[in-house]
Amino acid sequence: MSQTPPLLLVLSGPSGVGKDAVLQGMKTRGLPFYWVVTVTTRKRRLQEHEGVDYHFLPTERFERMRESGELLEYARVYDHWYGVPLAAVRQALTEGRDTLLKIDVQGATTIKDRVPEAVLVFLSPPTTEDLMARLRQRRTESAQQLALRLQKAQDEMGRTHMFDYQVVNDQVEAAIDRILAIITAEKCRTHPRRVRL
Amino acid sequence: MSQTPPLLLVLSGPSGVGKDAVLQGMKTRGLPFYWVVTVTTRKRRLQEHEGVDYHFLPTERFERMRESGELLEYARVYDHWYGVPLAAVRQALTEGRDTLLKIDVQGATTIKDRVPEAVLVFLSPPTTEDLMARLRQRRTESAQQLALRLQKAQDEMGRTHMFDYQVVNDQVEAAIDRILAIITAEKCRTHPRRVRL
Repeated sequence: MSQTPPLLLVLSGPSGVGKDAVLQGMKTRGLPFYWVVTVTTRKRRLQEHEGVDYHFLPTERFERMRESGELLEYARVYDHWYGVPLAAVRQALTEGRDTLLKIDVQGATTIKDRVPEAVLVFLSPPTTEDLMARLRQRRTESAQQLALRLQKAQDEMGRTHMFDYQVVNDQVEAAIDRILAIITAEKCRTHPRRVRL
Repeated sequence: MSQTPPLLLVLSGPSGVGKDAVLQGMKTRGLPFYWVVTVTTRKRRLQEHEGVDYHFLPTERFERMRESGELLEYARVYDHWYGVPLAAVRQALTEGRDTLLKIDVQGATTIKDRVPEAVLVFLSPPTTEDLMARLRQRRTESAQQLALRLQKAQDEMGRTHMFDYQVVNDQVEAAIDRILAIITAEKCRTHPRRVRL
């Protein structure tokens, strides 16, 4: 049904739930989405690549984008800024391409306010305890940063109801199958969501 | 996510579109639905089985069920009556079983009025011309019956918007995959539909 309008799929969930692994798995399957690369002022981690994981920008450049309305959404997360470049999303949708973006919970709910036709998927852990354990295993941050992240993750788990769908990330491949099922179902809707940007 | 409430899935579409083949294919895959068997006053066709395809009832018995409120929905289609036994549907849902019923377009829209939480799937042909060709190939009816059926099918195609989803039956197995995707997506909804009967 190629005549259905393109989807704007927003993949979110608490930090530590495995959003990156799910996204990577979807890319590995060669799925024909337009993958929105968000911009950030935080430092690149060792395994990350510019233009793939994020566009890493100096703070001044980020602020210019924000002030000139070039960001669909932006948010401060811990000490850094993250933003979604509006032009890229608009261009992809205009070309009729299904568009997928990964974003934190706060950002996702902001996008839903601005673009109600976006399809919001909340990736959740099998249990909250499981999420806490995953976060503690991370070695990239200080004890204080970890404590902040644990608190934040718990707050985020309480926002599931603001999303359209909840997908449990018990197994990455099973979670991807569910996300693909959601996309298929959305394309079968008799009243499709038409994104206006 | 076994804690989600059971679905009431209504599979419909114009006559000749291939509802029976899709239903049969789903049964062959061994899917764990409760399959509602509708009751009818029409004669059993050669390849049909009592209690599997329909419960074939004498008109008097059907009328007693209708008058005593034992039918969730009933309709006259051509010269015969069809009805959905309420007790069976209620029982299956109470047991937490996903429940699937096949019904004509008129009946499906009646069920949506009475049970807004039902998930309505409209099985549609690749093209209307394709449907007309399929109907003409049927050998079980008179020329007059065929003319009636062609007109009715065209009317039914105009009611797609009253359904939640439209699934094109280009290939039976592909159509089944889409229906299963819809079921998976419905079970991922953060605000699931809770059927009250």
